[in-house]
Parts: sequence; structure tokens; C-alpha cells
Amino acid sequence: MSRYWSSVVHRLTPYVPGEQPRLPQLVKLNTNENPYPPSPHVVAAIAGELAADGASLRLYPDPNAERLRAAIATLHGRFGVGSEQVFVGNGSDEVLALAFMALLRHELPILFPDITYSFYPVYCALYGITYLTIPLSEDFRIRVEDYAAANGGIIFPNPNAPTGCLLPLVAIEQLLLRHRQSVVVVDEAYVDFGGESAVALVDRHPNLLVVHTLSKSRSLAGLRVGYAIGQRHLIEALERVKNSFNSYPLDRLAIVGAVAAIADEDYFETTRRAVIRSREALREALLLLGFSVLPSAANFVFVRHPQHDAGELAARLRQRGIIVRHFPLPRIEQYLRITIGSDEQCAVLLQALRELLAAC
Amino acid sequence: MSRYWSSVVHRLTPYVPGEQPRLPQLVKLNTNENPYPPSPHVVAAIAGELAADGASLRLYPDPNAERLRAAIATLHGRFGVGSEQVFVGNGSDEVLALAFMALLRHELPILFPDITYSFYPVYCALYGITYLTIPLSEDFRIRVEDYAAANGGIIFPNPNAPTGCLLPLVAIEQLLLRHRQSVVVVDEAYVDFGGESAVALVDRHPNLLVVHTLSKSRSLAGLRVGYAIGQRHLIEALERVKNSFNSYPLDRLAIVGAVAAIADEDYFETTRRAVIRSREALREALLLLGFSVLPSAANFVFVRHPQHDAGELAARLRQRGIIVRHFPLPRIEQYLRITIGSDEQCAVLLQALRELLAAC
Repeated sequence: MSRYWSSVVHRLTPYVPGEQPRLPQLVKLNTNENPYPPSPHVVAAIAGELAADGASLRLYPDPNAERLRAAIATLHGRFGVGSEQVFVGNGSDEVLALAFMALLRHELPILFPDITYSFYPVYCALYGITYLTIPLSEDFRIRVEDYAAANGGIIFPNPNAPTGCLLPLVAIEQLLLRHRQSVVVVDEAYVDFGGESAVALVDRHPNLLVVHTLSKSRSLAGLRVGYAIGQRHLIEALERVKNSFNSYPLDRLAIVGAVAAIADEDYFETTRRAVIRSREALREALLLLGFSVLPSAANFVFVRHPQHDAGELAARLRQRGIIVRHFPLPRIEQYLRITIGSDEQCAVLLQALRELLAAC
Repeated sequence: MSRYWSSVVHRLTPYVPGEQPRLPQLVKLNTNENPYPPSPHVVAAIAGELAADGASLRLYPDPNAERLRAAIATLHGRFGVGSEQVFVGNGSDEVLALAFMALLRHELPILFPDITYSFYPVYCALYGITYLTIPLSEDFRIRVEDYAAANGGIIFPNPNAPTGCLLPLVAIEQLLLRHRQSVVVVDEAYVDFGGESAVALVDRHPNLLVVHTLSKSRSLAGLRVGYAIGQRHLIEALERVKNSFNSYPLDRLAIVGAVAAIADEDYFETTRRAVIRSREALREALLLLGFSVLPSAANFVFVRHPQHDAGELAARLRQRGIIVRHFPLPRIEQYLRITIGSDEQCAVLLQALRELLAAC
């Protein structure tokens, strides 16, 4: 507390990201990173930008990252996306933050699920946005019919986090049609692991903003690149706020690395399918151990064991050098969110769980 | 305009950064980039981070960038700065944006010079901060006695931009003592080219925040790293806002590159002195051509020619492939801001000016 703080600072409860431990030998299954390295083309592209003693680093990057926006438009080209419908930012967290400020700050409260990405209420506190949380169903599903309240916007991840549950596009389209007066933000951080992207709906719905990240399915959490796709008037709002905040959020290396990652469709397909295969294998194995496992369309599973306390399981795994995420929150305090690691990491996890369950 | 925009979006007039042209053969003296490449250690450090096929990029960076904060604390260690007094961000523009939100948003208007960094009023519009501009003296000096109004904070660059004029530390200390109730932000983007840093005053003044960038004197505009130094309670406010906005604004490559740049003191001294020498030589040559040249403590000069219109000179230089910055604003519309380029670039500029002046 300090008399120098702006009044909003006193009211903030900042987001707490998953632990980033310094010990490289840990089996790190807590922040939904991809077990595979990025495409080799990423490293080559960054090395290319570093040519001539890194002389290009003395120059500002393109503030509009046109090359990257063009690459993203091409990626989604089958839906008629042009680069003027693409907004890029420093990770999807920054893109979301700017979307809250640019498109979700109205008189009416915004709506999001009671169990969801825990950064959403933090953004609301930062910008003075009121919100209502809409309970998921008993089986942790988003029911679009529950989103009936007058609102200043709706946001949810699809698949949802930390549950991994997917809402089909037909339900999203219902929501868009019922709430034409407000923006619906679909946060597709995990969609490449089993969902169908709502980018397919952008050309028909002026109130839809779809947010993506390169942190998960492109193995680039360390490079900080995210983007949004929407009709031009929504992108313009994001650009106006971004250009009133920070002209150059993406550095030169992030831009060229992201372009290379997006261009390497084969590598993307191979690694994303490998993660999906590992997930389904892990799910089967966890079911055999007596866990309940929610069906997941993401690169994590959300699980509980009827006989074992989730917090205690997480602590015991931690003692064995395995980190998973436990949220001590209402309704989900008996669940663990486990990132899909490499098959070796999954095997280490399963062996540890077998031993822990047998010991109790 | 769109009904989906938050109300603030309608009121924004975004900042317009200097042009980033695509044509590499241009003599680019418009955005105060350093003519020298970054330290060779920067490239080596980034290449090191890319080892093992860039596998580390799949992992999130340290959200607190502890290594970088420690390096910055060491750099300013002679003033007793600890890493808990360091805040890092995605370029000093992001650091400034967060400082406006965290420390300058109060009931009373903030104060800054009438001629200054044009992003300041843009941040004010974004956050709904009222401000008063305080006119510089006739000779473009900040006079601390003019900053007498009750205020919610004071901010100015030192050296000021786009004038290059330096305010001595003794005057800054007067300002800090007269305004103990509000935060004074000293934006030292250019201080390494001739000023004395106010970091020396941080331990005595709880209301002082000093902001730096690696874009200018460390030749890293392309990497997007800036920082602030202040007493712990001010840094905590910045951290609270940052962690409510974006957990990881610095990617892995930016962190290791910045650490390497800061560690290479010899390279820093050599290149910064070379820029200062070039500036003084350019100043002499411009005076001989009949220009008025403000004394500069920055890596640019602010000049006018009594017989030639500044906008027209800028346009004619542009035709010859030389870009300088012209601000069509009250009091300075007859000035040009010229970045100190390499000696070769300065020679090309001078030759072009000689020919243009002779032709009119």
C-alpha cells in the first residue's frame, strides 16, 4: 500500500501464473506447454534475423507486424480471412487484455463461466468491468441457454480451461445470434488439440472475436505471440487501444519465429496429432487407475480420484519431481489439471500415481 | 466507429511512431535508432538460448525476468539499487503505459511539458487521466519553478524529446522536494548520450521513478526491453498492474539478449562515446551551414534553418532517400529532429543539405 498508487492498484488481485521452476529435471506438467520443441524452421528463421552480427536488432520492428499478419491470414485463408482482420500481440494474454479494454468495457456486466481461465476476472478488476459468472452444468459443460442475461459481452475459452470441455460450433453460433448487440470472444488457446475453430464463423458474425496463441500447439510459449481474428471494426478497436499503449509489442525475433512456425504445417500436424494420441493413451491409463477423466479437446486432462484428495496427490507428486496444477477453488478443488507431456513424461507420471495410490 | 467499441475507444487518437520504411538503402535518421549493432554478446546469448533446436522456446519465460532484473540492479549497483527496485517491460513504452495506470491516475491532473514525447497525452486519453501542459521556456528549457500547480504526478523525458535539452539533477531534486505528494517520472530514454541519471536520487526520494530503455544506447530497438527503477512501493504498483495485464511481456530471447547487452560495459562505452562524438561533429557542421542547433544530450539534434521551411527540407531530404522527423506542431513546426547516424550517414546528410541549401 502506498499513497502514490492509483486507486485501482489497491483493488487488484493479480493473476498468478503456473510455477516456472528452475530445476530442469522436473517433470513439468503444470502450464500446458507442448512437449515437443518448435518447428526447426523457427530456429532457422531467428538465426537468419541474427545474421550480420544482429545488426537488424538496432532497428525497431514493424509496429504492425505485417508479415506475421499476412501469414496468419493465409493460415485461415479457407475462411476468407484477410490480414486486415488479424490483430497480433505479445501472447494471447495481451490480446485478451486489450480486447477487454477495447470491446468488453460497457455499462452492462460481461458474462463468463464460473469455472474458466482465471485471468478474466483480473482483467475486469483492472479496467473496472463488472461481470457475472454463469455456472457450468454439473458435468462442467457450457450451456448457451444459461447465457440469457443482458450483457456487455461474453467470453469463454473453447475448449474451456481448466476442464478441457469443448463447445460445438453450432452452440457458439446460437450464442452469437442471441447476443448480436454484444461481442462474443472465443478464446481458442487449445482448439488445435481437438476443436473446430470459430474462425469459420467470422465472416457471418460481426460480433465474434476469436483469440489464438502460438504458446500451445506451436510450441512457442517462450516467444510470446498471440492473435485475434474478427471483422475489421473489431480489429480496429484493438489497434486503437494497442497503439495507445505500446507501438511495438512484438520484437523482431518473435515476428520471424512466429511466421516460420505458422508456415510449417507438416510439423504442426505431426506434433499436434502426437499430443492428441498421448492424451488419449493417458486418459485410458488414468481411467484404469480409477480416476474420473473429463473428455478433453485440449493438451491437458482434468481428473479426480474418488478415493484421493487432489491437493494431497499434487503435493506428493511434487515431492517426486512431478508438477501438476491444482486449483483450490469451489467445485474443482478435488480436480487436478495435468498437461500432456511426452510419452516418457506420461509414463513417469503414471508410475508415480500407481505407487501413490497403492501406498494409501 | 462501431457499436461494439468500448466508449474509450471512440476518444482515442493513437500514437503514430516514426516511419519504419521497407527500403533498406534509405538513410534512416527518423526514429533515434543507434547506428551501431548491439554488442556481439547479445547475438551469442540468443544463439545459446536457441541451442538444442530451440527446445527452450516451448517453455514459458520467467514471468519476473529475475536474471534481467539482477543484471540491471548490478548495472546501477553503485547507487545501491537491488533487483526488487527494478521493473522490466516490453520496451520503455510499455513501462510508461503501466506507470501511467499504476502511479499517475489520480483526481488531480498530471503535468508535463508542452513540447515533449507525444505518447504522454495518448496514455492519458487511454486511462482517462487529465493533464496540464507546462510551456518550455523560449529556449526550450524545462523550468522547475513553472511546475507549481497541484498535481497527480509529473513526467518528462530527460534529456527532453524532441529537443535533446538536459535538466540537471539538482533541478530534478528541487522538483522532487516540492512535489513530495506525487510521483515524478523521469523518462531517461536518451540519458546515456550526455546526461546524469536520476537513479542517483532514488534512495532519497520515495516519489521518484526513473525509466530506461535498451532501444537507444544499447542498440536494441528491435528486441523491446525497457525498465524502471524506484523504491519498492512504486515497483510493487507496477508489478500489480503488469500481473493484471500480461504475465510474460518479455520473451526468452529478449531476456537473455538484454542481460548480455547490459553486461558488456566496454562495448556500451565505446559505442555511446562514438555517437556523442558524431553528434558534436554533426552539430558543428550544421552550424556552419547556418542551422540553429539546440545543445543536445541525446542521440539526435533538433535544428532549424532561418531561411528554409522545415517541412519542405524534410520532404526534399526524403526525395533523396534520407528520412528525418518533422513534427507539424505549434512552436516546433520549423524544426527537424535528426538522429545521429554513422559518420557515413551524417556525411550523406550534410552533402544533401549543402546541395539543397545552395539550390534555393
